[in-house]
Amino acid sequence: MTEDTRGQVRQVETRAAALREAFAEGRLLRVAGAHDGLSARLVAEAGFDAVWASGLEISAAHGLPDISLLGMAEFLAAAATMQSATAVPVVADCDTGFGGDRNAAFTMMRYENVGIAAVCIEDKVFPKLNSFLGAGQELLATEDFGAKLRAAKQAQHDPDTVLIARTEAFICGYGVEEALARCHHYVDVGADAVLVHSKAADSSEVVSFTRRWQRRAPVVVVPTTYTAFSVAEAQEAGVAMVIYANQGMRATVRAVRDAWAAVLADGSTVGIESTIASVKDIFELSGMSQWLGRG
Amino acid sequence: MTEDTRGQVRQVETRAAALREAFAEGRLLRVAGAHDGLSARLVAEAGFDAVWASGLEISAAHGLPDISLLGMAEFLAAAATMQSATAVPVVADCDTGFGGDRNAAFTMMRYENVGIAAVCIEDKVFPKLNSFLGAGQELLATEDFGAKLRAAKQAQHDPDTVLIARTEAFICGYGVEEALARCHHYVDVGADAVLVHSKAADSSEVVSFTRRWQRRAPVVVVPTTYTAFSVAEAQEAGVAMVIYANQGMRATVRAVRDAWAAVLADGSTVGIESTIASVKDIFELSGMSQWLGRG
Amino acid sequence: MTEDTRGQVRQVETRAAALREAFAEGRLLRVAGAHDGLSARLVAEAGFDAVWASGLEISAAHGLPDISLLGMAEFLAAAATMQSATAVPVVADCDTGFGGDRNAAFTMMRYENVGIAAVCIEDKVFPKLNSFLGAGQELLATEDFGAKLRAAKQAQHDPDTVLIARTEAFICGYGVEEALARCHHYVDVGADAVLVHSKAADSSEVVSFTRRWQRRAPVVVVPTTYTAFSVAEAQEAGVAMVIYANQGMRATVRAVRDAWAAVLADGSTVGIESTIASVKDIFELSGMSQWLGRG
Amino acid sequence: MTEDTRGQVRQVETRAAALREAFAEGRLLRVAGAHDGLSARLVAEAGFDAVWASGLEISAAHGLPDISLLGMAEFLAAAATMQSATAVPVVADCDTGFGGDRNAAFTMMRYENVGIAAVCIEDKVFPKLNSFLGAGQELLATEDFGAKLRAAKQAQHDPDTVLIARTEAFICGYGVEEALARCHHYVDVGADAVLVHSKAADSSEVVSFTRRWQRRAPVVVVPTTYTAFSVAEAQEAGVAMVIYANQGMRATVRAVRDAWAAVLADGSTVGIESTIASVKDIFELSGMSQWLGRG
Repeated sequence: MTEDTRGQVRQVETRAAALREAFAEGRLLRVAGAHDGLSARLVAEAGFDAVWASGLEISAAHGLPDISLLGMAEFLAAAATMQSATAVPVVADCDTGFGGDRNAAFTMMRYENVGIAAVCIEDKVFPKLNSFLGAGQELLATEDFGAKLRAAKQAQHDPDTVLIARTEAFICGYGVEEALARCHHYVDVGADAVLVHSKAADSSEVVSFTRRWQRRAPVVVVPTTYTAFSVAEAQEAGVAMVIYANQGMRATVRAVRDAWAAVLADGSTVGIESTIASVKDIFELSGMSQWLGRG
Repeated sequence: MTEDTRGQVRQVETRAAALREAFAEGRLLRVAGAHDGLSARLVAEAGFDAVWASGLEISAAHGLPDISLLGMAEFLAAAATMQSATAVPVVADCDTGFGGDRNAAFTMMRYENVGIAAVCIEDKVFPKLNSFLGAGQELLATEDFGAKLRAAKQAQHDPDTVLIARTEAFICGYGVEEALARCHHYVDVGADAVLVHSKAADSSEVVSFTRRWQRRAPVVVVPTTYTAFSVAEAQEAGVAMVIYANQGMRATVRAVRDAWAAVLADGSTVGIESTIASVKDIFELSGMSQWLGRG
Repeated sequence: MTEDTRGQVRQVETRAAALREAFAEGRLLRVAGAHDGLSARLVAEAGFDAVWASGLEISAAHGLPDISLLGMAEFLAAAATMQSATAVPVVADCDTGFGGDRNAAFTMMRYENVGIAAVCIEDKVFPKLNSFLGAGQELLATEDFGAKLRAAKQAQHDPDTVLIARTEAFICGYGVEEALARCHHYVDVGADAVLVHSKAADSSEVVSFTRRWQRRAPVVVVPTTYTAFSVAEAQEAGVAMVIYANQGMRATVRAVRDAWAAVLADGSTVGIESTIASVKDIFELSGMSQWLGRG
Repeated sequence: MTEDTRGQVRQVETRAAALREAFAEGRLLRVAGAHDGLSARLVAEAGFDAVWASGLEISAAHGLPDISLLGMAEFLAAAATMQSATAVPVVADCDTGFGGDRNAAFTMMRYENVGIAAVCIEDKVFPKLNSFLGAGQELLATEDFGAKLRAAKQAQHDPDTVLIARTEAFICGYGVEEALARCHHYVDVGADAVLVHSKAADSSEVVSFTRRWQRRAPVVVVPTTYTAFSVAEAQEAGVAMVIYANQGMRATVRAVRDAWAAVLADGSTVGIESTIASVKDIFELSGMSQWLGRG
């Protein structure tokens, strides 16, 4: 789990190819969100198949809301740190591709250059608002987003890199017809997989999609709001990848709030020591023993 | 708590001055460790007086051990993000000053430039190993570290910025005489406060120091291993600042490990939802409502 | 000229205030383009009043065309380096504000935080193409750009920071009426100065503007194509600031091409030594003697 | 010349292998210094075999002297930009390896990760002073530098990556015996080539070295002060690579000084237009036409 970065260049193909292999075999991939090297290591350590470099988490880690304030530089740096820190593939949340067609092409180039296996861009208008906000959700015209996908594919160097087209059709209030029409077009112009986002309280939206999708390309879902949707149900619905996008950071917030409150209330840390990891745990997660073995 | 960055330039003096004021009044400052904007906000939200920009945490967040692999650029970027994210002062862990005398001067300049209130450098040989590792702890000669402190003070622009000299005398196996001799010299050459680090299981080392220190300058302690040391005891011992350096990240590791294990075991997130913060909590911590009110 | 960064925080007000003072006195400011610390020092050393942190130059220095591929992070880092390297104000070319209204607000915050005296944003649609390209020039609606300016002003912290609204009306094929109407609106919503860009072969466009502008706010011009436009003419036309935006980089390209061609042709550098600066010159420009005097 | 970054991952091996092939064939490589994407493109365009990512130039571009103030982050970012901008190999000046053995290992990892073909580290004590400064030059013990080289080699992933060991023996006042003894040891512990630095006014020092070196490994020279040393002489002396380390930046300084002085004297740019490159030249160097063809 505490991989160093040495394996990275050689594993570029392997990581992307591993995703494609799982897609081909119909093996459901379970993916969890992270925002830095430590959170990525915790995802890999737990046994997830890949790390989701979450735009919400990366933004929040910068102390900023997820509304396209940060650009590619910060998102890419975070994704690169996560990829250097783990052996599993990183699936990068790349917002809207950070602008127009050429920005989408640039996104593909730069993410591939740091060894990212999968790049995901979404069909909202730039600058976008986080999908869980009620108002202000605006879809880009289908053809315009198709042009972004085409530009990204043309810029792609490694044939195994996975381009995921994320539709926000449900998020923006459209129905399954719109989601299907968009995803068909996105696959027609080259997308390797589609992410169908939904903020419904149950899985009905995404299941209405998968029923009619005919498995033309792998389907990715993000069950943040429809929390009861299980991997068994996902598998049955023909989903290829389930992303738990932000629960890690949300666990962090609760735990750290509780810990600091206790420390201030108690006037020392003695009361929380048994409820938190040890300094040695941090050492291990940060690769200390491998590094001390060096030089 | 969800401060934007607008107040920063004006508050440069205020933050550093606030630290000096507390020192002058003998008011104990409670400080907690962080490594990014979110963790800094959690520290400020809890009610701590300042944020410790922890080298251990910053390194681990990069997926790297705390052994001087990262340089000033990464440490500074993290500290600047923390300072932009909060209204309380950031006390920056600056390792050994990232090299020699001129690097210490450069450290002071660059940290002041992003509005950091307090800079802490330590008297180990560069590159250093984290203080909680058993072997390989090596002290720089007293005069050589004094030269670093002098260089940093000469480079200082804002008279209120606090330079904390951290001695690793106890960490490196020396006794209270060495710690005292070093700290006297450090204050003589300009240090505004001293941090006396100890990895003893109880507070005897640091208390042996404070008893004989005569309050020539404020004393900072980091009770990572002597966990029962309370703020009441610290106050009585004449300590000016207590830093809980890494408990937040350690709480994170435990909580995220538990959360991901449960998600994989359960096949969904429904079981952990009540134990983690909400997406709305993340929004609030990231300043979403203030930002949506803008533009 | 080889300023260190110590003066920066204190000079934030001074630099911006110096620009406002010159505007108030009707003293023409001469500004030259740069893209890094060295080129900024050469601008200051020559005696220009300010450094233009040029988007074209910053992009080219990254090996990229000036078409909004880079985001705020790279532009800001370059501007901050320039500001740290010189005592004169930096006038920052901030493209379209890197997105929508909130991005413009964020731009103002972040540039102020590193001590930039003046921020310039332009009224083209994001992502934009460099103004000297023939096709693809598209103006944002006047009200929409006005909203960006308003957001930037609301985010402004230091009352002296100068917000320059740049109109690309002439660049996009519109006439003086459109340029005037836009600039009136921009000043109405808070812009402190207007930059009227033109790629005409002579100064007729900009002079047609200044004649009817009535000096409601300072006017900035960039005579890249109308090269014969002199400072005397500019002063007479009521121009407040003339920016020579990219001639430094263009001088670099010619000189370096000639130098490397000669080295390869000659098989050594002996023939060019008398035509290039010395290593000692590089030392002086980089502040070597001040730094050796330290520590 | 205006390469995009798409070829990078695949060319990692090719670039490093190309260097090794030239070494094996005894074909002299001519290399020129640069510090950003544009200057790297000018090196490649001129026909040099590789780009030297010069520490002196990178530091000066940041407005800082070459005395180990910048760390790996800034050096690496500059080298990565240069490598993304050109198809020829980048030979990276990595100072002393930015610290101790583990830092040298980390240097190798990170530079390989961005596709750098050759990494050069030198045997001075960290922090070092630029070699052309008279005083303060201090050599690391031979065995200690050997340990750094060993650590770097152990961290190396791509067998073709070239590790160049640079000895500052002559710079530090030692003779050819010391230089030879050091370089023998460096090659014994794994260095793939040696760089023998000299600041003598003629080539006698480096030729005294090459005469007795017996071609155990390729020899690199940097004729900054012995300017008359020709490639023909270098070839005859058995030199494998000649680096013109900083003449490009020195040409820049002279040309920009002259240009800005003329602009201020003339009150316009019309007089210098015929002596500088065109805006279109900048476009071409920045890859504008390829990018406009995209998307």
